[in-house]
Amino acid sequence: MIETREGYAPQSPETLSAYLSGIERVRNILGGDPSRWRIAEVGDGNLNLVFIVRGDAGGVAVKQALPYVRLVGESWPLPLSRAHYEHMALSEQARLTGRLVPEIFHYDETLALIVMELLEPHVIMRRGMIAATLYPRFAEDISTFMSRTLYFTSDLALPAGRKKAMIAAFAGNTALCKITEDLIFTDPYRVADLNRWTSPQLDPYAARWREDGDLKVAVSRLKLKFLSSAEAMLHGDLHTGSIMLTPEDTRVIDPEFAFMGPMGFDTGAIVANFLLNYFSQDGHATSPGERDAYGEWVLATLEAIWTSFREKFLALWRENPAGDAYPASLFQGAEGEGRLETERQSYMDRLWADTVGFAAAKMIRRILGLAHNIDLEWIGDKDRRAVCEARALILARDMMVKPGDYPSVSALAERARRVRRDVIRY
Amino acid sequence: MIETREGYAPQSPETLSAYLSGIERVRNILGGDPSRWRIAEVGDGNLNLVFIVRGDAGGVAVKQALPYVRLVGESWPLPLSRAHYEHMALSEQARLTGRLVPEIFHYDETLALIVMELLEPHVIMRRGMIAATLYPRFAEDISTFMSRTLYFTSDLALPAGRKKAMIAAFAGNTALCKITEDLIFTDPYRVADLNRWTSPQLDPYAARWREDGDLKVAVSRLKLKFLSSAEAMLHGDLHTGSIMLTPEDTRVIDPEFAFMGPMGFDTGAIVANFLLNYFSQDGHATSPGERDAYGEWVLATLEAIWTSFREKFLALWRENPAGDAYPASLFQGAEGEGRLETERQSYMDRLWADTVGFAAAKMIRRILGLAHNIDLEWIGDKDRRAVCEARALILARDMMVKPGDYPSVSALAERARRVRRDVIRY
Repeated sequence: MIETREGYAPQSPETLSAYLSGIERVRNILGGDPSRWRIAEVGDGNLNLVFIVRGDAGGVAVKQALPYVRLVGESWPLPLSRAHYEHMALSEQARLTGRLVPEIFHYDETLALIVMELLEPHVIMRRGMIAATLYPRFAEDISTFMSRTLYFTSDLALPAGRKKAMIAAFAGNTALCKITEDLIFTDPYRVADLNRWTSPQLDPYAARWREDGDLKVAVSRLKLKFLSSAEAMLHGDLHTGSIMLTPEDTRVIDPEFAFMGPMGFDTGAIVANFLLNYFSQDGHATSPGERDAYGEWVLATLEAIWTSFREKFLALWRENPAGDAYPASLFQGAEGEGRLETERQSYMDRLWADTVGFAAAKMIRRILGLAHNIDLEWIGDKDRRAVCEARALILARDMMVKPGDYPSVSALAERARRVRRDVIRY
Repeated sequence: MIETREGYAPQSPETLSAYLSGIERVRNILGGDPSRWRIAEVGDGNLNLVFIVRGDAGGVAVKQALPYVRLVGESWPLPLSRAHYEHMALSEQARLTGRLVPEIFHYDETLALIVMELLEPHVIMRRGMIAATLYPRFAEDISTFMSRTLYFTSDLALPAGRKKAMIAAFAGNTALCKITEDLIFTDPYRVADLNRWTSPQLDPYAARWREDGDLKVAVSRLKLKFLSSAEAMLHGDLHTGSIMLTPEDTRVIDPEFAFMGPMGFDTGAIVANFLLNYFSQDGHATSPGERDAYGEWVLATLEAIWTSFREKFLALWRENPAGDAYPASLFQGAEGEGRLETERQSYMDRLWADTVGFAAAKMIRRILGLAHNIDLEWIGDKDRRAVCEARALILARDMMVKPGDYPSVSALAERARRVRRDVIRY
C-alpha cells in the first residue's frame, strides 16, 4: 500500500513555484518575481524528486520524498518519513561539520520536502572520477566529515543518555535500513530477482558467490553488526554518488539512510567506492596506460583519507573525551594516558578491520546486486568491464574472508595494485 | 530534583487497601472484606516499596517505584519510569517463558505500581545458597529463561523493524543503565566516594585495581559493549537476588534495569553470582570441609547452566531462524546448513567470551564497589571474608584480562577450584 498523508502531494514545477513563494527566506534567496523562476525536475537518483529552482538573485535545490521507490514505481512503497531522518541527520552533520553539507533553508515535514543550497558548479563525485578529475581537497574534507560526525555521535564523546536518545530518534528509519540489509548483505549471495551482473561473463562468479560458505558467514557477521552495533550516527549511504564537489569545495548530500550503526559502514563505503573506481579506470582508458596516473591518484587519495581520518579521530578523542566510554577518570597521569593511547590505537585497528569488511560487502553488491556504479556500468565493452569487475570481486572476497591480511590501508592499496596487474581476464 | 507526577503518591498500607479494593481482579484474588486484608511493607531491596497483601482467599505482592533510591534517600533521584520498563520487560518475559516470572495482575503507570503474584514459599535465591540449599531445577529453569528471553529478542529471531522498535521502546531507561555504567564498569577502578571494601584487609587490592592498566582497558571495552551493542532484551540485573525459588519452582523478578544490550551481561551476571557464592562457602563453614559438597554443587550447577543454555539457545536458533541476521535463504542444503552450524558454534564461543568478561566485572564490583553480596557480607570474621574475597578478585582479574584462558565453563570451574585451593591468605 502506498502511504498517504494529509497535506502531502508530490510537487510539480507549477505547484512548487507557488509553494516556495510563500516562504520568505526562499523568496529572498531566489529574488525577483516568482513568475520568472525557472524550475526543472532533475532527479536522477533512485528514490526522490529533485528540483532546481532559479530566480533573478539565486537558486535553491528542492528534494522531496515520494511514497515509493522512484526507480521501481508504486510497486515498491517507501515511507515519506525518510525526509524526516534526512533532515535530522543533515542538521546534525551541519552542526558538526559546518560547510561540508549543503545549507538547509526550509524543511516541511508534511510535504517531506527540504529546500537547500543549490550547489554550483559542483558535480557528483562519481562522475568527476570517471572523467579522471583530480580533487586535491577531498581527502582532507571527507576525513574531517567522517571523523567529526562519527566521533561526536559515539560513546567516546556523548554521555549515555544523549546517545540513547539519538538511537531512539533514528530507530524508526527501518525501511531504509532494510534496503541496505537486503541489497548489500543478503541478495548478492543468493538467487534474487533484483540481482544483475555483466552476463554471461560473470555468471561463474555469481554462481560461486552463492556457494561460498566462508563468504556467506563473513557477510552475515557484518550484517549482524549492522543490525546490532549502534556505535555512531552514520550517513548510511556514503558513496561517491552522495558527494558533490569541485576541486575546491566538498559537500556530502543525501543522508536519508542515516541511523545509529557501526562506524565501519560509513568508512567502508568510501573505501569501496575508491577501489571500484580504481578498477574501473582500465575500462575507461582509450590507450594503454592512459589512466595509470589517475589510478595512482585514486589509491594515494584512499590512503590519505584513512590516514587523515585516523589521525583526526584520535585527535578528537584526545581533546574531547566527554563520553561515558573510556572515562578519563580511569586513565589519569602519564601511565594512564599512555595505556589509554595504546588502547586508542587498538580501537582504530579494530575500526579498520570493520572498514575492510564493510568495504568488501559494498564492492560486491555493486557488481552482483541490484544497484551498480556508473564507474563500471559506463564501460561499454562488456568483456573489458567484466575484467575490471572480476578484479574488484576477487579483491573484495579476499578482504571479507581474510581481513587480517589487510592490516593497513597501504597494504590494501598494494594488494589492489597487485590484483590489477595479475588478474588479466575475467 | 525529585520527580513529581500528577496522581502519583507513595503508598502506605492504609492507602493501598483502598486502592486495591477498587480493582476487581485483585479484590477477587484477595477475597473477603478489604478491612481484614493484612498489608505489610517488606521492601529490603535498594530502590522501591514492596508490600505483601493477604486476604481471606489469597495474597498479592505490590511493588511501587519511589522517585529516589530508597537505600540512599531523596539525595539520589531516580525516575518513576523504571516501573514502566519493568512492566514492559516482565510482560515480554512472561510471553516468552510463561511461568518463570511472577504473574502480573495489575499495572498502574501513574502510580508506577505493579500488582503481581505473591510467591510463596519462595525465597530469594542468594539466601538459599548461603544456607546451602540445593536447587535441582534451577539450571534447567534459568537456562530456559535466558535462552528464550535472549534468543527471541535478538536479530536471530526478529525482523529488523521489530528489533529496532524494541530498542526504541527501552532507550529511555537511561537512568537505570547509568547506575550500571557507573557502579559496575567505572567506580571500582577509580577513587569514588561510594566504593567500599573489607578494610584494611583488601586495601592493597583496591589500590592495585586503580593502577591496573590492562584491567581498566578490559573493563572499558566491556563498558563500550554495554553502551553500544543492542543484541537482545536484557533483564539487566540477573543476579541471585533477582531470583525467588523453591527446589521445585523458579521465578525471575525485578527486571527494572531491562534494556536492549549485550547478551553476555545477563549470562555473566549468573556466572558471577555463582562464583561469588562458591568462594563464600569457606566463610560460612563451621567446620573444615563442611561446605565442600555444596561448593561442588554450585560449580556443577554453574556448568549445567551454561551447557544447557548453550544447547537450548542453539536449538532455538535451528528451529526458529526467523530473524534478519544469518538469513536461512543463504544457508540452504546440507552444505549450507553445515557451514551455518559451524558458525552457530562460533557465535556461542564468542558469547561465552563476553560472558566471562562481564562475569568478572560483576564479581569485582561486588567486592570493591558500592553494592555487595550478602554471600560475602554475612561472613562475620573479616579476615576470613577477606580470604574469600581475595580469591574472587584474583580469579575475576584473570578472567577479564585473559578471557582466552577460559575456553569453556568447565575450564572456568576448574580454575575456580584451583584458586580456592592455592590462595590461602588475602
